[in-house]
Amino acid sequence: MKTETLLLHADSESDPDVRYATGMVVPDPVFWFRKGTRSYLMVNALELGRARRQARVDEVIDQSALRDSVAKRLGRSPKPLDLLVIQLRRLRVAAVTVPERFPTGTADFLRKAGIRVTVRDGLFFPERAVKRPDEVAAIRLAQAATESGVAKGIAALRESKSRGGYLSHGGERVTSEYLRWIVEAEMLRLGCLGQHTIIASGDQCVDPHDTGSGPVRPNTSIIFDVFPRHGATGYYADMSRTVVKGRASKELRALYDAVKVGQEWGISQVRAGCQGRTIHEGIQKVFEGLGYVTGPKDGKMQGFFHGTGHSLGLAIHEPPGIGARDETLPAGAVVTVEPGLYYAGIGGVRLEDMVLVKEGGCENLTLFPKELEI
Amino acid sequence: MKTETLLLHADSESDPDVRYATGMVVPDPVFWFRKGTRSYLMVNALELGRARRQARVDEVIDQSALRDSVAKRLGRSPKPLDLLVIQLRRLRVAAVTVPERFPTGTADFLRKAGIRVTVRDGLFFPERAVKRPDEVAAIRLAQAATESGVAKGIAALRESKSRGGYLSHGGERVTSEYLRWIVEAEMLRLGCLGQHTIIASGDQCVDPHDTGSGPVRPNTSIIFDVFPRHGATGYYADMSRTVVKGRASKELRALYDAVKVGQEWGISQVRAGCQGRTIHEGIQKVFEGLGYVTGPKDGKMQGFFHGTGHSLGLAIHEPPGIGARDETLPAGAVVTVEPGLYYAGIGGVRLEDMVLVKEGGCENLTLFPKELEI
Repeated sequence: MKTETLLLHADSESDPDVRYATGMVVPDPVFWFRKGTRSYLMVNALELGRARRQARVDEVIDQSALRDSVAKRLGRSPKPLDLLVIQLRRLRVAAVTVPERFPTGTADFLRKAGIRVTVRDGLFFPERAVKRPDEVAAIRLAQAATESGVAKGIAALRESKSRGGYLSHGGERVTSEYLRWIVEAEMLRLGCLGQHTIIASGDQCVDPHDTGSGPVRPNTSIIFDVFPRHGATGYYADMSRTVVKGRASKELRALYDAVKVGQEWGISQVRAGCQGRTIHEGIQKVFEGLGYVTGPKDGKMQGFFHGTGHSLGLAIHEPPGIGARDETLPAGAVVTVEPGLYYAGIGGVRLEDMVLVKEGGCENLTLFPKELEI
Repeated sequence: MKTETLLLHADSESDPDVRYATGMVVPDPVFWFRKGTRSYLMVNALELGRARRQARVDEVIDQSALRDSVAKRLGRSPKPLDLLVIQLRRLRVAAVTVPERFPTGTADFLRKAGIRVTVRDGLFFPERAVKRPDEVAAIRLAQAATESGVAKGIAALRESKSRGGYLSHGGERVTSEYLRWIVEAEMLRLGCLGQHTIIASGDQCVDPHDTGSGPVRPNTSIIFDVFPRHGATGYYADMSRTVVKGRASKELRALYDAVKVGQEWGISQVRAGCQGRTIHEGIQKVFEGLGYVTGPKDGKMQGFFHGTGHSLGLAIHEPPGIGARDETLPAGAVVTVEPGLYYAGIGGVRLEDMVLVKEGGCENLTLFPKELEI
């Protein structure tokens, strides 16, 4: 077996690979490397105790002790990158493989020091595409919180009263912000952190990444796209639902039915070995067949102009996905199926479930009902 | 004036420079570049509408339209990096300057395409060290939420009843998790997101990065270290307080008084042009003078073994800091002053305020009282 050395230099917040490799939260950048099968984590004094208790590595290296001993020899304080080079040389590492997002500053430093740096394209840990049972369990936990949060938000909408074109709930004007607070507080109670939660209504939800702001109006489409992270494990879930408080127009109802049939067809096609692109193009054809045209109109995209889905885990967007690119879904992938249709003047509709890819089919991890008018 | 081209390739969540440069939230990686004084943002169809409305750039480039036109010419779908190279060539850019954390995969691709890539060490936008009035205002907002959150947490502790070595509040056992929920929910209500909020008691708070778990006990030190991000603007605040529910031991009270005097001395030294290292070493000397030794004991660090402070803004940890390195604090920097002392068997104490550096002194942005026993 070839002895390859993998190297990461990041914190676990901005880099899911660090969290995957170490199993711990590190707020500041650390060095992780694996030579052959032996893994190392180099941390400063502040993280040492916690790293020794929590990190899933074979050896924790005390960077501060190394710094002090080198400083004594050099008569000056070495930089963390100097210490990394010293440590790699001690382990006779002459070449490292790094992820695409590895910092260029660090790569250039290592190259100057004579260490070869090769970038691995795509997933740095290919095994991240196939979720272990404990990873699926963490995603299910996040999903349970998601559904509980959305349920609270929709319940508030249901209870709200319409007057003068506005909605009110418990004396409060119903806004995107108000509903977001209800949804996110419930998820927080269940240990999950929602960020950039989309609750957008009316013309706002025609822009799929508009998070929504201001009054939520009756009789217009309201998109909930909720994707919190479970604090203790770091895993995400992701779900979208579209509802109308009151009555949907005929056009909006037809849009909803089209998205629902496209989504259900998409889910029915997911199985181990399937091609993401085939499913994505199939849904595009379903929509075209129903007369829904995609393209720019008045300088804005209309129709179905985003991917059908993405894998998720320690990152909210992971490969493999279901979109314009050729990607094969393996058994054990957890992937969203979330087509949408958006037309200014009618509204936006997106429905998103999260499924676990299996041999011959998939398991839908989303239990939340799909109901347009509430 | 030299026409330098700056280049970023990241999302705004993991890279504060992207948020700083564009003023908007982008969940997936985008290309931002600035040639001379003209800035560009290249985004796909999904982000186009929002980017045109929100991005603080001179030109938004439609990556999807570019892709389609190039695909027609090539007969195959180009990768985003191909499109970046095409765009840079169109603008006659032969060399780019990138931050340390710029992705190596992208740097290597550009270099292969004949574009020179130079890494800028330290802050990519040096102006980020000096906060504009709107940035200070955003930090104040985050700080107001922080203080409101900690006030709720401490109020719950105050109201809690001690029985059999445990605390209970409204029928619930008082734990780190319970208090964290109270603090974070209050901050969420005020539009701020707390992550990895530290509420650690007893022996846990002797490890400064232990976030705390399980029962919070009476008569031991409890550290609150709370650093939420204001959702709408992306700016952080940061505050730490140490309290005891009940009675502090004589040793713990002495520890608290030492940290308080060290912190107050540190704050008194902050002014435009001061050296972070001088202040940090001064506090170390104060602690040593009071008999508090720093170093490993039973394989764990004890005493004062972290930096005194860090700047903050769109990132929680930014240069310049107050620590072991030579760093000068400019007027307009917002920096924490947070010494601590940690001894197994006695407890941990950290007090952290956030100050705005001015000519001849500083303004303390933290109004929250310091009180040990509650």
